Amino acid sequence: MTSDEATRVRGFHEGFRWDGTALLPYKEEGSAPFKAISRQLLFADPQLGCELRYFEMDADGYSTLERHEHMHAVMILRGHGHCLVGGEVREVKPYDLVSIPSWTWHQFRATRGEPLGFLCMVNAERDKPQLPSADELRQLRSDRRVAAFLDGARDI
Amino acid sequence: MTSDEATRVRGFHEGFRWDGTALLPYKEEGSAPFKAISRQLLFADPQLGCELRYFEMDADGYSTLERHEHMHAVMILRGHGHCLVGGEVREVKPYDLVSIPSWTWHQFRATRGEPLGFLCMVNAERDKPQLPSADELRQLRSDRRVAAFLDGARDI
Repeated sequence: MTSDEATRVRGFHEGFRWDGTALLPYKEEGSAPFKAISRQLLFADPQLGCELRYFEMDADGYSTLERHEHMHAVMILRGHGHCLVGGEVREVKPYDLVSIPSWTWHQFRATRGEPLGFLCMVNAERDKPQLPSADELRQLRSDRRVAAFLDGARDI
Repeated sequence: MTSDEATRVRGFHEGFRWDGTALLPYKEEGSAPFKAISRQLLFADPQLGCELRYFEMDADGYSTLERHEHMHAVMILRGHGHCLVGGEVREVKPYDLVSIPSWTWHQFRATRGEPLGFLCMVNAERDKPQLPSADELRQLRSDRRVAAFLDGARDI
């Protein structure tokens, strides 16, 4: 088997790791709020219009609350938790699909005392995320369920 | 919840089906050789450079042996089986990643007496697949392991 052939199949290993695939920081530390979340770039090829990434957070971890022009196409792979999409909090389980439209506030949280991992397909060329202003955050929190989610409640 | 919000999370159901997602024929019947395989279009949005599809074959089913300019980025989701990529036959299990480069012969087969299902990320705009000529097929079959794979052997 040539090394080129070896990379055509990258084996999966316990703990949601793959051969030849680095465990990366989610974002630059301090660039935005997030907690206990990692990133693996599963597919990123100049021939592809999209990348496929795997994000995983530990129990009680969360991704950044943000929005941007580009959309996200998500499939949950590991564990149970919740996501915020726009003004709505939804429970998610393995293999559920989540569409995050343009300019929609979104966040994933591992609310069930276990890791939460998901695939995210995204355009290779994309704009930078925006963080909510104090006013926008206040408006999001005016919904009690959203406020509980943002406060890290396990029982939403 | 508005109907727009309802479609943002599409729930997964036993048997690898999703809310609001149709079970489609793999290809037009008679257009190419294949067996006992279905297709579900999980994400296909004009804003995305790629589509994410889920293909599943029953035990002993197979996808078309073909090649094309566009590449495939595959993650196995369900079951065990084998794939052919170029001149190489590889065993695959859930969550393994398979990269299929441009113009590389490829086929998936459910060789383990169980369904084999996989995600396939592909550019939204892509060329049509080519089928092997008699000569190309003969050349592929000159490798004993490839010949066993193409003959549908379970013990490769």
